[in-house]
Amino acid sequence: MTVTSGALRSRTDLCTAIENELSGLIGKRASAATAYGPNFTRLWELAGHNVLGGKFVRPLLLMETYDALRQRGTNQPEQDHRETSPHATGHRETAISIAAAIELLHYSFLLHDDVIDGDLVRRGHPNLIGSLLAEAQALPRNNTAEGARAGSDLHWAQTGGILMGDMLLAATHQAFARADLPHELRLRLLDLLEHTINETVAGEQLDVGLGDGIIDPHLETILVMCGYKTATYTFELPLRAAAALAGADFAVENALATAGRHLGLAFQLQDDLLSTFGDPRRHGKDPFSDLREGKETAIIAHARTTGAWQDIEPFFGRPELNGAECEYVRRHLADCGAETFVNGLIEQQLQAFNDLLTSTIPSAVCTVLLDLAGQLEGRQS
Amino acid sequence: MTVTSGALRSRTDLCTAIENELSGLIGKRASAATAYGPNFTRLWELAGHNVLGGKFVRPLLLMETYDALRQRGTNQPEQDHRETSPHATGHRETAISIAAAIELLHYSFLLHDDVIDGDLVRRGHPNLIGSLLAEAQALPRNNTAEGARAGSDLHWAQTGGILMGDMLLAATHQAFARADLPHELRLRLLDLLEHTINETVAGEQLDVGLGDGIIDPHLETILVMCGYKTATYTFELPLRAAAALAGADFAVENALATAGRHLGLAFQLQDDLLSTFGDPRRHGKDPFSDLREGKETAIIAHARTTGAWQDIEPFFGRPELNGAECEYVRRHLADCGAETFVNGLIEQQLQAFNDLLTSTIPSAVCTVLLDLAGQLEGRQS
Repeated sequence: MTVTSGALRSRTDLCTAIENELSGLIGKRASAATAYGPNFTRLWELAGHNVLGGKFVRPLLLMETYDALRQRGTNQPEQDHRETSPHATGHRETAISIAAAIELLHYSFLLHDDVIDGDLVRRGHPNLIGSLLAEAQALPRNNTAEGARAGSDLHWAQTGGILMGDMLLAATHQAFARADLPHELRLRLLDLLEHTINETVAGEQLDVGLGDGIIDPHLETILVMCGYKTATYTFELPLRAAAALAGADFAVENALATAGRHLGLAFQLQDDLLSTFGDPRRHGKDPFSDLREGKETAIIAHARTTGAWQDIEPFFGRPELNGAECEYVRRHLADCGAETFVNGLIEQQLQAFNDLLTSTIPSAVCTVLLDLAGQLEGRQS
Repeated sequence: MTVTSGALRSRTDLCTAIENELSGLIGKRASAATAYGPNFTRLWELAGHNVLGGKFVRPLLLMETYDALRQRGTNQPEQDHRETSPHATGHRETAISIAAAIELLHYSFLLHDDVIDGDLVRRGHPNLIGSLLAEAQALPRNNTAEGARAGSDLHWAQTGGILMGDMLLAATHQAFARADLPHELRLRLLDLLEHTINETVAGEQLDVGLGDGIIDPHLETILVMCGYKTATYTFELPLRAAAALAGADFAVENALATAGRHLGLAFQLQDDLLSTFGDPRRHGKDPFSDLREGKETAIIAHARTTGAWQDIEPFFGRPELNGAECEYVRRHLADCGAETFVNGLIEQQLQAFNDLLTSTIPSAVCTVLLDLAGQLEGRQS
């Protein structure tokens, strides 16, 4: 017999509510899409499949924080779908809609990131672009040279990625814009969305500039890039939105945002460690894609400052590296202290995070954040 | 001595109001952008330069239609900046803001279109991507092979195009979302924006699918594509938005939208004619880029149905075509009747447009539309 705890029941209920909201947002658009033919409809089908197959990290963070701020403990799982708080200013229905919109924003960013990086796979499965490419390749066509056809199939698929990213970005804004909220609160959320998009775009641009050799790979730049590109929209946005919707003090919102940034940076740095040193059977990514692509991470930034770099550099960013060469680079990165150095950076971020969980942030919210931080421990994927 | 007519004065005032609004929307964001460093700021500078150098076709159509619907004739130029109408439900300030937002949407579409098409030039000048590319190429860099560097410079520049398009799409939505309007009217405008984006994306996807050989080049498909890709956001959106903001009857809005679609299709077909048969010294485009790219236009769709196609096909869509070969194709396209055929299609659209200018559409608005239609006559660029 399985015993389901209140906390688990509550999270399952939240997942269901978020999934229903996302199904509604996507389903409505997928239906409207049929008026424009099968290719257009296919974009929404694939996007819907990918979005609804996600883990809802961001919407769950928003809703659990919102509920904690509104003092809905994990011991009140039955109240999840109703506005039963004695506070008159809660906006739980809208919070679910904003949470779902943030998941659409996430997929919009992922899609454009995949176009920019030329990626066709995410977590071991074809992404939207990879699916469109496979479907285009399966079409019978005449009078096209094989080489030209390969180019046009990829062009078609990547165009689908750009266009679907645009539509998801639009859908995100529509949800924020339509929120049934007091004017001032809607404007505050719109400010937050704009700030988030600017910072994420700035982070993406830094990331690409580092990879393309336009921007110098200083450690400081790389850490700023990680914060902008991922921490802002994954942690700061859901936390600030939860605080605004729950009517929390601005001091609480700011403390949450700062805690979220530290946590977000820790997650991103750990992602880099996993990609380079982790077990590909667990994380499901190409184990050496960061090395082959020449991705400028904190690991590499540290290695550049050591004597080992002269042995690593000839292999870094070479797409044709074989497995043995990759292993050689990986061993040098570990031996030069880069792995230890980045683990130290993660510790620093977690310490700064923990230091914030004292006075300003309500204890129920600290529980939510500590639970999230706990997912870093022993993380394999 | 120059005599400035009331109509011209009025249009100049409108241009100034639109320019001020756009300067405000962009200037605010360009200032905020400086926090993220010079590369991010550069995106907003370039976008601002391009947007503010435009002709404001869409915002002018919206505002002139709005003013005509609110019975501000061209004989009332002094009232342009104030809400002096006796009707209480006018929203002129908001109309200017929505008009400016539609211009941002236009540039967002252009940027992503340029990324998709690999274009670096628009109307004889470097577009945003072309400017970013030239600036990247001018940077001193070491340790990069010439070939790899060319690829990464272009990648950096095209990434800028994707990201800036995203930010302009976001800025468009922000303006719609923040409009100080009754809830129902804001929702109506948001519906309109969503419909427009869907249809434009569907049109772009059709266009790319035709070019990549994924979708068969039937004339019907090409005409649908033209309507979706350009007529919807250039004509239908400004006209419907003007009607909604002016409080016009739904019958008027629908008649305007239909008239706008006919006019939009006529403009697009004429663009195709100009690109293929026009004088490049006048229209400023590469005179044979449509032929070299293998762009599926109504001209080509007609040629495919004639005996001339067997002489044209070997040259169509070959990037390496020389001037003499292009001239040869152009002559065959004219001789096979394709130019005449497309001119006939334009006439049909203009006839359908004229037929609508009878009862439903107020006469002041008919004047605005006829003035716009008049720009087709003798158009060289």
